[in-house]
Amino acid sequence: MEIEDWIDEVSGANFAWYIKRLSGNDTQLTGGHQAGPYVPKSLAVELLPQLSDLSLKNPRELVELRVLPDGFDTTANLIYYNNKFHDNPSSGRNETRLTALGGRENPLLDPENTGALTIFAFEYGAPVKCQVWICQNREQEALFEDEFGPVEPSETLVWSPNTKAIIADTKKHLGACSLSVEQIPSEWLVKFPSGLEIIKKSISLRPDLSKSVDERLLRRRDCEFEVFRSVEQAFFFPKVRSGFQNLDEFLAVAQSVLQSRKSRAGKSLEYHAKSILDEEGFVEGIDYEYNPKIEGNKKPDFLFPSVKRYNDGSFPAERLTILAAKTTCKDRWRQILNEADRVPTKHLLTLQEGVSINQYEEMSRSGVRLVVPKKLHKKYPSKIRSEIMTLAEFMTHIKN
Amino acid sequence: MEIEDWIDEVSGANFAWYIKRLSGNDTQLTGGHQAGPYVPKSLAVELLPQLSDLSLKNPRELVELRVLPDGFDTTANLIYYNNKFHDNPSSGRNETRLTALGGRENPLLDPENTGALTIFAFEYGAPVKCQVWICQNREQEALFEDEFGPVEPSETLVWSPNTKAIIADTKKHLGACSLSVEQIPSEWLVKFPSGLEIIKKSISLRPDLSKSVDERLLRRRDCEFEVFRSVEQAFFFPKVRSGFQNLDEFLAVAQSVLQSRKSRAGKSLEYHAKSILDEEGFVEGIDYEYNPKIEGNKKPDFLFPSVKRYNDGSFPAERLTILAAKTTCKDRWRQILNEADRVPTKHLLTLQEGVSINQYEEMSRSGVRLVVPKKLHKKYPSKIRSEIMTLAEFMTHIKN
Repeated sequence: MEIEDWIDEVSGANFAWYIKRLSGNDTQLTGGHQAGPYVPKSLAVELLPQLSDLSLKNPRELVELRVLPDGFDTTANLIYYNNKFHDNPSSGRNETRLTALGGRENPLLDPENTGALTIFAFEYGAPVKCQVWICQNREQEALFEDEFGPVEPSETLVWSPNTKAIIADTKKHLGACSLSVEQIPSEWLVKFPSGLEIIKKSISLRPDLSKSVDERLLRRRDCEFEVFRSVEQAFFFPKVRSGFQNLDEFLAVAQSVLQSRKSRAGKSLEYHAKSILDEEGFVEGIDYEYNPKIEGNKKPDFLFPSVKRYNDGSFPAERLTILAAKTTCKDRWRQILNEADRVPTKHLLTLQEGVSINQYEEMSRSGVRLVVPKKLHKKYPSKIRSEIMTLAEFMTHIKN
Repeated sequence: MEIEDWIDEVSGANFAWYIKRLSGNDTQLTGGHQAGPYVPKSLAVELLPQLSDLSLKNPRELVELRVLPDGFDTTANLIYYNNKFHDNPSSGRNETRLTALGGRENPLLDPENTGALTIFAFEYGAPVKCQVWICQNREQEALFEDEFGPVEPSETLVWSPNTKAIIADTKKHLGACSLSVEQIPSEWLVKFPSGLEIIKKSISLRPDLSKSVDERLLRRRDCEFEVFRSVEQAFFFPKVRSGFQNLDEFLAVAQSVLQSRKSRAGKSLEYHAKSILDEEGFVEGIDYEYNPKIEGNKKPDFLFPSVKRYNDGSFPAERLTILAAKTTCKDRWRQILNEADRVPTKHLLTLQEGVSINQYEEMSRSGVRLVVPKKLHKKYPSKIRSEIMTLAEFMTHIKN
């Protein structure tokens, strides 16, 4: 089935999409025997109200599951693990999961799909049906992300394909970094701030300088997203509140919002990496260059130490380093292979929650070395965990 | 240079994008010695006001041209051919073109780029600069079309990347098929009509039954687009006129508009083909099936005569036909290769304005046979023109 036809098929009013990138835990890459992917309880109970009956322990209902594009069919369970309300009030489970996935034949349990954007299209009815689409490439992911915006590792979303509205969003819980209009610099309400300006603001709100660079990166990313969304609201809402003269004007504002989200998603990780490099004493122009042009048209995210050294044939190649930053790497890591001919090992900073062993080995053979914030290492297969660098280790490597 | 970086670079307030798909005339595929691509006069004169001086004959100005992603540089001319106001008032030329492109080395003159979505990013200044991006694949095209919407062969657009607004659009000149709110069926204002309903309306406005099927197809496509835009305006404008309670609600309406445009662009050609088949006496369910499922997951646009015959091994394969409909085929034709294993020759209806000889030969070797409305045949190299079918010829072929 072509993806466009599938989208048509599951876009009616009786569908709700649960959206996430498959993590190493989901695909059992990390070897756990976890039951199956977590599903938001609010969605599960809306699909199957009988699950909310707390007099039953761990109630479950059948779900007809079809996984595409492969076309794998099975009858799965949607279970509410509610032991918190039975045997173990203090630390018992209180979550819903999709389980009984039919074993390793199910593409949802294929480690090669780790990192793939995945749409669980639940259809209301008896029995509940669930069609899953696991994106096979960037093009398919772009088709979906145009609808509901960029989806990052660890983010989840419940989406109505019919009303095009977000029903629930893990990112919606704005915390301490969310700003009121009064807290936002007034010039930002005139001209939308750049990604770097927003990041500076998030650092001032959450400096975390006593924390490790790995922890700092992840905490600040969360904070920056909240700042971004507050500014977006303050900047764009006045433009949409009072209505439009015509459709073109309306669409122009919409495109501005969508582009600014896309641009944030594309640049945020490298901006954070740059900020942390600066804090850690790396001097731009001496120790590294950001987005330098080399070999005519190439533009790595970071080059250590400089274009001058890079172009100096007598400077030893093993003292040159490049670092690329990509939140997900499954379909993107090959892009960095020809970013700097002189540097045989390409470092890649990613937030993807796991990489399959096959893909990892392919990366290694191509000279790609992964840099992953420490907290995420447990999402990677134990076999390769020791070969993945933390951000702190990467910085030590550069200093030496 | 990565495409995302390029888009950033040419999205400032001092840029205007001229957008089109390269035709066989543009790439000199058809062997003409045409000067170079047409540029809207309004844009040319805004970039270079001195061109509007009618006391000069055929005034020209230099433009620094850079063609990406290849990185080809040359100094081109922007010429106003104004002979209508000099030697030949009745039929003299009155148009602006980008010329002196630097010969066949220029990717703009590479026949393999015929059909490619191409962005001419003009930068105001002295001298005027023009950076051109020729899309290399569907993914790059999708990146752009997400911004300004689908671009069909023969359509052109002038776009402000800064304000995200259409400055000029060949499609904006609404004609006889444009409907006032009063002329639109009232139920369409409650529920947006399906593509087939809009096409039925456009047929009632412009039946053209005395015209050839080839002409009918093209004229009705134009008419249908006007109907679509009138309905879009009548349906969505009331929803945006009076403003929004929050950004999510605003974006949900925007996504609905964008999706309905995308869906129209994706389906219109096959719906028109279906309507014309029906008019010409082909009976659905007997002579052909529309979007049938075969071989499990495959779904060709049209199968002649039926799934039953297709699955009947004793029915001769040479009497089976499939037809796919794709407005552009450059990066999409391979999708149809495995749409029906039993049918060795796959017919492909397209509106693309030319196909390079290399690509045509690759198509032929893969069993693809092009069906192109007669009026567009002159955009194809003369060498292969006789092998391309008109829609009328295709229908005769099916009947026999």
